[in-house]
Amino acid sequence: MVVMNEADIRNIVSLNSDVIVEMGAAFQSEGAAFTCQPPVQQMMLAPLNGLLCVKSFYTALKKHFVVKMAGNYRPNGGNVSETHGMNAVYDSASGQLKAVLADNGYLTQIRTAAAGGYAIDLLAPQTLDIAVIVGTGRQARMQLSALMLVRQPKEIRCFGRNTESLKCFVDWALDTHGIKVAYFTDEALAMANADLVITATTSRTPVLHKEAVLGTRQSRDLLIVAMGSDSAEKRELEEALVLESNRWVCDDISQSAVLGELKGISDDMFGEAFTPIELGDVLRGPSPGITICDLTGIAKLDLAISEYCLARMPE
Amino acid sequence: MVVMNEADIRNIVSLNSDVIVEMGAAFQSEGAAFTCQPPVQQMMLAPLNGLLCVKSFYTALKKHFVVKMAGNYRPNGGNVSETHGMNAVYDSASGQLKAVLADNGYLTQIRTAAAGGYAIDLLAPQTLDIAVIVGTGRQARMQLSALMLVRQPKEIRCFGRNTESLKCFVDWALDTHGIKVAYFTDEALAMANADLVITATTSRTPVLHKEAVLGTRQSRDLLIVAMGSDSAEKRELEEALVLESNRWVCDDISQSAVLGELKGISDDMFGEAFTPIELGDVLRGPSPGITICDLTGIAKLDLAISEYCLARMPE
Repeated sequence: MVVMNEADIRNIVSLNSDVIVEMGAAFQSEGAAFTCQPPVQQMMLAPLNGLLCVKSFYTALKKHFVVKMAGNYRPNGGNVSETHGMNAVYDSASGQLKAVLADNGYLTQIRTAAAGGYAIDLLAPQTLDIAVIVGTGRQARMQLSALMLVRQPKEIRCFGRNTESLKCFVDWALDTHGIKVAYFTDEALAMANADLVITATTSRTPVLHKEAVLGTRQSRDLLIVAMGSDSAEKRELEEALVLESNRWVCDDISQSAVLGELKGISDDMFGEAFTPIELGDVLRGPSPGITICDLTGIAKLDLAISEYCLARMPE
Repeated sequence: MVVMNEADIRNIVSLNSDVIVEMGAAFQSEGAAFTCQPPVQQMMLAPLNGLLCVKSFYTALKKHFVVKMAGNYRPNGGNVSETHGMNAVYDSASGQLKAVLADNGYLTQIRTAAAGGYAIDLLAPQTLDIAVIVGTGRQARMQLSALMLVRQPKEIRCFGRNTESLKCFVDWALDTHGIKVAYFTDEALAMANADLVITATTSRTPVLHKEAVLGTRQSRDLLIVAMGSDSAEKRELEEALVLESNRWVCDDISQSAVLGELKGISDDMFGEAFTPIELGDVLRGPSPGITICDLTGIAKLDLAISEYCLARMPE
């Protein structure tokens, strides 16, 4: 049995174009082979002020299967959450435990950022004028890093409520990527003329609203990648905005309905203009109007990043 | 982080009276503190001809919390299943991963047997004339071992369908415990005058029926401990027999309804004579008529056996 800790894993896995390609391949993987993806197990842990998710995936097409634990906690309050957890990797043919990737949630962060990058590469126009990141935390930063691997927007904005956090984000972007980011605390101003909005918050109330996005317009061309909501309690997009979408894409329809932005949207609200489609099935390229891509995080990617990590393990 | 493999764990944990006492304490533990026990995550893995269960439990009363994986497979057919899995043990106060108990399902077997022993100690008469084990596999043997730790029945019987397996069980009981076991392939004969029946099979169709248990009688004094059914597909007790019970006990009512012997029993069938009660809440001692105790296996015990193991870890 292989045991790797976070430092070992960080040495061999980082967010780069290869990882985005691998996550894309996982999204696109289909086949007649047996697969099993049980509902996500969630522990809402009040004493830790956070949530532990268990996501599991088996496919007979791969050498391994995975049970992934990722916890996100703020045990003592504070702005930046702690992450904990591990990926348990089993042999698909024998059921034996093959590897314990004690990553403290690092692989989940990487695969989440790479999924965002892949969704943008698949759905956004080749040329972007203005991209907006909503949120200033760890995953907001990783989403910006992933974006920069697939597109080079002329202008990057960050929208949030806390000026201090926004300034830290701006400093980080300049230090890390050498790019200037303009920050906004006004939603409508932040959204003006944007081509792409990535929401990366842990908000329980919508951070993006129809009014600010559309104003008095009937429609606009915009790709929204909403990757923050991954539990019954979280929500980033106002329902009215969800219902305005001209194309609705998500990583997993059943998860989106329970954990993501399809919460509260009943099947009879679906129609020709608003039919959920999964990332693995959507056609490449931008589409007129508002495209929303809701990412809740799927165990298929946890398996893919685990196998990616194991394949790069030193002898 | 502590990593222990199956051999390490077998060195310090075995089925004995201490473990039964510890599991009893876990059943009885209650309190105003925060607890979280999400629904069991189950993976029905057709290529492995088996099932992986993920059971998780958090309580603010304990130093640790647990995510337990236990797989039971017959990848190449055969009578004896392989077990795989591990217990991931986290710190309750920080969320950090503290231990990986790579037990291949051993701790789950021990806690399951100990739970059976505890249930018998709690619910059976002090003196037992005849005890029947239904099933001949690994857990049937462990249930007999647990029984011998809490009661000394005058006669032990084993009931099953396969004569060869029954003979192996009889040999094992003589070798291991020095006790003579009579074997039966006829259900009604096996049940005649029994005080206690323990069902320990993986059957998907009932192995115990009202007709064989009651015959032409209206009732009889009998304790049935049904510990085999732990998934939507499994079933050991005929519904008619379940409805004949004068006292219904289980380890977890919500699990019994989905995974155990309360499947298909609707709430309006419950009444004064048939109201589910959990092991932690039932009064000690036998009760007239048929008592059924349905054990589906609960994560509270996975935490207890993990802490028991960690407490005995060599320096």
